[in-house]
Amino acid sequence: MSLLLDTQYLEGFVTEEELARCAGPLAAAGEALAAGDGAPKGWRTLPEGFPEPLLRQLADTGRRIRESAEVLLVIGIGGSYLGARAALDFLPKRPGCEVLFLGNSLSPSALAETLARCEGREVAVNVVSKSGTTTEPAIAFRVVLDWMRRRYGSRLRERVWCTTDPSGGALRSLCEEEGFGRFEIPRDIGGRFSVLTPVGLLPVAAGGGDIAALLDGAREGQRRYGGPACLENPAARLAAIAALLDRGYPVSLFCSYEPYADSLCQWLIQLYGESLGKDGRGPFPAAARFTTDLHSLGQYIQEGRRMLWETVLSFDPGAGPALTVPPLAAGHDGLDYLTGRPLAEINRAAMLATAAAHHDGGVPVLLIEAGRREERTLGELFYFFETACALTGCLMGVNPFDQPGVERYKQNLFRLLGKPGC
Amino acid sequence: MSLLLDTQYLEGFVTEEELARCAGPLAAAGEALAAGDGAPKGWRTLPEGFPEPLLRQLADTGRRIRESAEVLLVIGIGGSYLGARAALDFLPKRPGCEVLFLGNSLSPSALAETLARCEGREVAVNVVSKSGTTTEPAIAFRVVLDWMRRRYGSRLRERVWCTTDPSGGALRSLCEEEGFGRFEIPRDIGGRFSVLTPVGLLPVAAGGGDIAALLDGAREGQRRYGGPACLENPAARLAAIAALLDRGYPVSLFCSYEPYADSLCQWLIQLYGESLGKDGRGPFPAAARFTTDLHSLGQYIQEGRRMLWETVLSFDPGAGPALTVPPLAAGHDGLDYLTGRPLAEINRAAMLATAAAHHDGGVPVLLIEAGRREERTLGELFYFFETACALTGCLMGVNPFDQPGVERYKQNLFRLLGKPGC
Repeated sequence: MSLLLDTQYLEGFVTEEELARCAGPLAAAGEALAAGDGAPKGWRTLPEGFPEPLLRQLADTGRRIRESAEVLLVIGIGGSYLGARAALDFLPKRPGCEVLFLGNSLSPSALAETLARCEGREVAVNVVSKSGTTTEPAIAFRVVLDWMRRRYGSRLRERVWCTTDPSGGALRSLCEEEGFGRFEIPRDIGGRFSVLTPVGLLPVAAGGGDIAALLDGAREGQRRYGGPACLENPAARLAAIAALLDRGYPVSLFCSYEPYADSLCQWLIQLYGESLGKDGRGPFPAAARFTTDLHSLGQYIQEGRRMLWETVLSFDPGAGPALTVPPLAAGHDGLDYLTGRPLAEINRAAMLATAAAHHDGGVPVLLIEAGRREERTLGELFYFFETACALTGCLMGVNPFDQPGVERYKQNLFRLLGKPGC
Repeated sequence: MSLLLDTQYLEGFVTEEELARCAGPLAAAGEALAAGDGAPKGWRTLPEGFPEPLLRQLADTGRRIRESAEVLLVIGIGGSYLGARAALDFLPKRPGCEVLFLGNSLSPSALAETLARCEGREVAVNVVSKSGTTTEPAIAFRVVLDWMRRRYGSRLRERVWCTTDPSGGALRSLCEEEGFGRFEIPRDIGGRFSVLTPVGLLPVAAGGGDIAALLDGAREGQRRYGGPACLENPAARLAAIAALLDRGYPVSLFCSYEPYADSLCQWLIQLYGESLGKDGRGPFPAAARFTTDLHSLGQYIQEGRRMLWETVLSFDPGAGPALTVPPLAAGHDGLDYLTGRPLAEINRAAMLATAAAHHDGGVPVLLIEAGRREERTLGELFYFFETACALTGCLMGVNPFDQPGVERYKQNLFRLLGKPGC
């Protein structure tokens, strides 16, 4: 049912003895995480403690958006859009709004092209920002508000929802003044850990996802991975593996064999990059999609500098499309030996062959059998990786919850653009 | 008019003295490239030598596809789709087919979802494969042929074009038997250098791109970068910079501030990864989109392990959308100081601020001012990077034209799947 770590392709790179020696530091890391003096760790108990009325309210609002809009524009950057996008791309398409993401760059082309896709369609907006002053989403929100006001006039207020700080913040004031709907981002949960709050849940609900099932999966995750950080806890085990490999393999590649997991890998890049990349340390996180990239980056992985390790996410094809290789009248393509075989089986064979080949070529490969392409799987995965990543930070002696470099970027941008008082 | 290298953010990392010491090896690399004993280097003289009748035939076929189809399915993997996708995503949308890419993975979900997008629309197909036997596109082509035959019956032949080997190959035989249209991939041009052959040009023409202008840009590139490899040649200069930085900065990050350049960065990842990642060496190529990823990977770039260097592609907003920051009645968002300013200007300010901050944080940054978002720019860029990358390989002492690791993957996959005789 739940995810499994397959460590056979780590052989020769990480030994059971080395892992056993991590047991003490790992337990200490777990305790540090649980104690967490002032650290924003609300995400750890979020799934079990999620208020039922809030879940109903989010599901109801999602339904209302689906019924009144064909497009939901989600305005946010970093942790304010990566989780929702990961979930919406991962889940099979269901009847719901098309969700488009905006305000995650300063590109005028991207803004204009996204608005062009809204022409002639009913639109709703969800702006996601703790402070309401981050430059990219704040600019996009101004442009979109302007556009929506010209289009909907006084009916604007029925079509805009703000997800923001529970007490202060610029967005909250605007929200109250205009009468927009409002959801809160818990104070003790940082951006990259916020996918299971209204930040991620409202767009997923509007897009047709089952957010109750997503939370169920996360609850299962909390039960399995939220306990003591021992080596029997797969999230803790992953943390130990990551900390050990970081010594010789500074590039950490997240891979899958399904395009629907591309955005999930982008979510992982933020989670790991922002949590561990500080003090001149940390693994550089990157993503690859196989077999696609085996015809490009594959050359590098097999034979380039030996500094990569891979985390491969594997999903059970379960109820997915049962496509098989059709016959070809004159089998010119040398593929007749595959006629009638399911694509899913061939995809899996490619995964196992590649894991073995990369391992033999000097690349440690961790395979994660993650379950089916459905909400439950994803909820569990979110919790699993949040826990594993936070524990890796504690093991490596970095604070996994701050992002001083990003804060400095925001301030630099204010100053360079001439913001008064910056 | 043409692209410019801005090296100010390399200060302290690469000196003019070091570059000057590269002059000799660089000249030798240029001569090796020009001599190229048996190396597939047809791409070097392709733009100036491109046959006019072929260009007209490609443009005519593109027009015919546009007139008879709403969707063009391009079936190919690696160099057989990355160039066309880079171009189609880069260019502003024009009236033309929607081009969807298929056969670049073994995912049944991706195949089924792409075919679902074709329902109820007129479809044409371009299958791109030198041998016709590469597993991923060969399987997808079988599935698509089946689907097209059921739909179009004997009219199938009017809707399928094969881009393949000029003399042998499985695809060529099938093509002749079925009466499909056919274009040739020159023998002396490898996959990742093939974007300016029919491999890239036919999909671009069908998508509404001006392939004559694309080739004009490439011709300009050949004139500017195809000559002797001296430090005054920007492509040669980039090769020297890359070879020098490779010693201390093994991760090479391609960045832009425009989502329309995302796929171009993926093309660069193949070009560099496959050309240089061998013999246990080479820079690991990765991509980032700013300012988007400054809110995720940005933390790592600013403060993580010091092993990255950046190549930033900057484009002149030129005739792009003239969006400005609109006013907000009650300026809650602290953004009033930006009211009325063009987004393009703010985006550029962010680029300069970030280059300075990354440089100060220990990241060498090369800025490339590449020109406007149009065909000419892109043609020149393709030629520029192909030359720079090949010269880097020669400087580093690796063969930039083979991909033994990828060939081994293809063979492994045949064997594991039980292909007779493998």
